[in-house]
Amino acid sequence: MITIRPAVAEDRSRIWDLLEPVFRAGDTYAVDPRISRDDAIGYWLDAPRATYVAETPDGIVGTYYIKTNQPGGGDHVCNCGYIVDPAARGQGIAQAMCAHSQDQARGFGYRAMQFNFVLSSNAGAVRLWQRLGFAIVGTIPAAFRHPALGLVDAHVMHKTL
Amino acid sequence: MITIRPAVAEDRSRIWDLLEPVFRAGDTYAVDPRISRDDAIGYWLDAPRATYVAETPDGIVGTYYIKTNQPGGGDHVCNCGYIVDPAARGQGIAQAMCAHSQDQARGFGYRAMQFNFVLSSNAGAVRLWQRLGFAIVGTIPAAFRHPALGLVDAHVMHKTL
Repeated sequence: MITIRPAVAEDRSRIWDLLEPVFRAGDTYAVDPRISRDDAIGYWLDAPRATYVAETPDGIVGTYYIKTNQPGGGDHVCNCGYIVDPAARGQGIAQAMCAHSQDQARGFGYRAMQFNFVLSSNAGAVRLWQRLGFAIVGTIPAAFRHPALGLVDAHVMHKTL
Repeated sequence: MITIRPAVAEDRSRIWDLLEPVFRAGDTYAVDPRISRDDAIGYWLDAPRATYVAETPDGIVGTYYIKTNQPGGGDHVCNCGYIVDPAARGQGIAQAMCAHSQDQARGFGYRAMQFNFVLSSNAGAVRLWQRLGFAIVGTIPAAFRHPALGLVDAHVMHKTL
């Protein structure tokens, strides 16, 4: 029921619909909550190596990007970001996208995947990534000013592919 | 004997002299070893919040930048990069620049300083940062392909200011 495919130009408006509330809330991604539509689209669709959307019969319900995490001698490690429509939670969309991203990453020749900034307050995400084989390899204290919780830690999570 | 001051346009050529061998060697910074002069100058001088040079009677012997490490809710944490002329090693230049950068960072309102990618093979740097109060808060396995040593780990180091 979940199809994941590369994003195309026609998906931009729907992708922005998914990004905007997440970035404006400022409680999960280290992105300026006032980011413009153009900058957000650039961040999610233009800068990365590839961007995908997850579709169900309800339409596009999720999106993720994959990019090189560090240039030069670090460019065998990729980074991904995932966003799921809140209305589609509990259907395994994030898990499906993460599994898909690992396959794509291997195809691109990456040897590991790293999440640089998983907020400790985002406990559901931390648990999901752990279940999918990612380890917490670092914790940055008080790394993020959560709008409701104040200063929260951020985890660095890593999986060898 | 060490004076640290903001970099000015006239310093660009000398700063490139310091950056080029470090970036070309590809054994400490996660930078494409083939980076162009313009891109290197952009990375070191234009993108950061501020860039400084360290001078002795011998001239400019070191340089560092300070920038915001993450936007949005993470923008109270800064990042710095330092380079010392190999001919000026052992004079405390890196230590002086790091102390100076912490003062500048506090002045800019940053509440912590983070180094995202300190190679475990760069043992002198790891020891120096630890001596200056930075803690290893994470270690990314096999994060960097060192040209002589193969895959080496990278540490995330952090200090509350």
